[in-house]
Amino acid sequence: MQDMERLRSDIAGLTFEIIRLVGRRNKLASEIGRLKDRYSLPLDNPDVEVALMESVIRECDMNNVDRRAGLKILATLLQESKRVQGRNSVDARITPMAIASKAIELQRKGRKLIRLDVGEPDFPPPSGVVKATIEALSSFKTHYTQSRGIQELLSALSGYIAKKYGYSFEENQMLVTPGGRFAVFAAISTVVNEGENALIIEPNWPMYKEALDYIGATSTIINTKMEDEWEPSLDQIAAGIRKNTRAIILSYPNNPTGSIISQKKFDEIVKIANDNKVTVISDEIYNEYSYVESPSILRSKAERFILTSSFSKTWAMTGFRIGYAISSSDYISSMLKITSLMITSVPEFVQYGAIKALQSDKEVKENVRTMKERIEAACEELERVSELEYSRPKGGMYVFPQAKSNDFDSAEFTSRLLEQKGVSITPGVAFGNYPKAFRISLGQPEDVIREGIRRIGELLS
Amino acid sequence: MQDMERLRSDIAGLTFEIIRLVGRRNKLASEIGRLKDRYSLPLDNPDVEVALMESVIRECDMNNVDRRAGLKILATLLQESKRVQGRNSVDARITPMAIASKAIELQRKGRKLIRLDVGEPDFPPPSGVVKATIEALSSFKTHYTQSRGIQELLSALSGYIAKKYGYSFEENQMLVTPGGRFAVFAAISTVVNEGENALIIEPNWPMYKEALDYIGATSTIINTKMEDEWEPSLDQIAAGIRKNTRAIILSYPNNPTGSIISQKKFDEIVKIANDNKVTVISDEIYNEYSYVESPSILRSKAERFILTSSFSKTWAMTGFRIGYAISSSDYISSMLKITSLMITSVPEFVQYGAIKALQSDKEVKENVRTMKERIEAACEELERVSELEYSRPKGGMYVFPQAKSNDFDSAEFTSRLLEQKGVSITPGVAFGNYPKAFRISLGQPEDVIREGIRRIGELLS
Repeated sequence: MQDMERLRSDIAGLTFEIIRLVGRRNKLASEIGRLKDRYSLPLDNPDVEVALMESVIRECDMNNVDRRAGLKILATLLQESKRVQGRNSVDARITPMAIASKAIELQRKGRKLIRLDVGEPDFPPPSGVVKATIEALSSFKTHYTQSRGIQELLSALSGYIAKKYGYSFEENQMLVTPGGRFAVFAAISTVVNEGENALIIEPNWPMYKEALDYIGATSTIINTKMEDEWEPSLDQIAAGIRKNTRAIILSYPNNPTGSIISQKKFDEIVKIANDNKVTVISDEIYNEYSYVESPSILRSKAERFILTSSFSKTWAMTGFRIGYAISSSDYISSMLKITSLMITSVPEFVQYGAIKALQSDKEVKENVRTMKERIEAACEELERVSELEYSRPKGGMYVFPQAKSNDFDSAEFTSRLLEQKGVSITPGVAFGNYPKAFRISLGQPEDVIREGIRRIGELLS
Repeated sequence: MQDMERLRSDIAGLTFEIIRLVGRRNKLASEIGRLKDRYSLPLDNPDVEVALMESVIRECDMNNVDRRAGLKILATLLQESKRVQGRNSVDARITPMAIASKAIELQRKGRKLIRLDVGEPDFPPPSGVVKATIEALSSFKTHYTQSRGIQELLSALSGYIAKKYGYSFEENQMLVTPGGRFAVFAAISTVVNEGENALIIEPNWPMYKEALDYIGATSTIINTKMEDEWEPSLDQIAAGIRKNTRAIILSYPNNPTGSIISQKKFDEIVKIANDNKVTVISDEIYNEYSYVESPSILRSKAERFILTSSFSKTWAMTGFRIGYAISSSDYISSMLKITSLMITSVPEFVQYGAIKALQSDKEVKENVRTMKERIEAACEELERVSELEYSRPKGGMYVFPQAKSNDFDSAEFTSRLLEQKGVSITPGVAFGNYPKAFRISLGQPEDVIREGIRRIGELLS
């Protein structure tokens, strides 16, 4: 037992030595911070961080340290560097929901607004859905369900997928979630750990980056341009993959641009992912709103994938808060644990309503046609605004125009537009580094959208 | 700029040195693992870990390392020790939901069961709640709401609290959540970080420990005994607080025992928390089901607190998935971020239903009376089972009897009871280290509960 005492004392000694080295490392980081200040150098050095990360992985392999543990420690060390340099670790972007809150506040005060900010269709949910939800409530479907979702919904979902893609999934490969948002969160936290990395193609829904920030993972941003119809190149994606990259997050039709890549290009991205043992998380929430064929992970040969989706957009059920995920049984099993831990289940009667949604083909067709007309109307109006340029959306629920002038600050413009013209839109910086662009949501009737864009034109001219 | 290069190279060198020390530490941990195997020593050494943690905090303070960063690194080091010793880092307890799944599976196969496992009342939600939810659905209250919850509900909640406790809260001190479970998760992740610690009094709802495990925090378990009416002593609590303890989690009436401590004792616990700058998370979900005065954090002088609760039990609204939290505006602001990130909001129409719940005094009185009668009936039946002993619940929805014999394995008994007598209950090990005990849920009519306990008696005799 003396051996044990000695070993324990040695292990404590090494632990303290590690903390002391962190202290010495912090001192050097402070000095670097001072040099950066003095010479006005940029504070972030992604290349330096990536090189360090790759070397840490090598050291882990050579020293029998788990890579994930090494990357977690590195993440903590980098946070410490930022702390001693007096910087906040999270950069707070403007979110679409923050814009919405400001608009709601003005509306509360009696201001009449044109709301082209929130990504929420104005049309009602299918009448069958409301009816089925009410029936379920009336017959006291008001109990806990299994966390995965009720069997009837899972089976309806499996049928819906089979009809669309020609093959079906087992119950243990599906999960019902409180909204697509939770599906995405559970997917990202299942695949990516603290200190690991994921690829995001921007502009995009800010939630992906927020979720990665929350779990302490890093994001590699692939920026796309209007001139390329907001499509990434394969080279960009291949070059973005690091040793610690665990996921590529794809979402077509894209929010905010409405761009859609071909299934062929999607498959080529999947191949890069497969070759690098990277998981593809494909958020297909806007899949029905497509005016060219939209790619799906279910038509690809992804070796590791999670599909997330939602009832919110296709069936105008945002306020029902119900979505789903489809994946391999092992990923779903991890996501199920998170779901059980945090929420038990989606409300039982909401799940019964969702079954009806999957049978509401007529309403979906109508919604999709309406949205197509709105995209056309929006583009027609945008043609008249000579200060703006845009890439015509191939799907989705938004247009994403940008100023031709380089001297344009969409955050400033957005707040002036709300103030002076009573129109709320979302500035491009909410979706990435796009200060010249802004998102117009098409969740309003055509005449409202037209009027909103006219007022944008007025303010610009 | 040569300075910068040199500093960067030194910082990289220190980083690798840290990883190498982790590797050496892992080697020593392997040796300890072998010694433990050879001499059949217990694998976990909470005392050793606590001593190490306190020394790490001291080293952090001396070396300008953030305590939270040091504790995160220590948590990773301890995980690595477990990995190289070939152990899983999470000990999977039996959960009440797992028991429920097994029972549901049997029921699907046509087996008729007496379900005394799930903590879910059998009575319907107040008719006003169902009506209001249906009305909200019919008038298309089917949209996103602000993440905090709709103003009408927050204002109704504030009124409900004011009526009960004599003072009210502002909108920014309240949060509507998808169930009490999410409120507890958001509370724990707001207060406790990876590598930090919280006190849990057991037996208790397993969710608290699961949430702490999920975020990589440690739990100090305070064990209580039937002979003490399942009450902790102040000495136990004071002794349980470590340097890295951030929260004490209290929940009275208790699940599974039905014990209730006095407001006086509660206040004394709060004082210990205040003196140590520890936050009290008080889960008051069973508060209405009290047959002696039940303590509340809102009657205490806690300097740091989060109250979590739910509409599930008081109003039999489990399947609506709606709960809430009340706290200081800064804690609520953090919890709000988690809510926005993961779920956007609770379904809009469900929130309208919940407003009505807060006005359903008559139904609450009825539910509370019914539960009291069931506790009495259950105790009456338990008196006839000479093999069992119990402490009479002062509130809650459960009884928690235990075998008089030391030679009793409630997990084994539970599965035999289900198999041979068609009665499902939850073994004590789901709630902590209580292999002699089991939980009987009173969410069934009196005659069903009586029959269930009779069959338990038959199997025991």
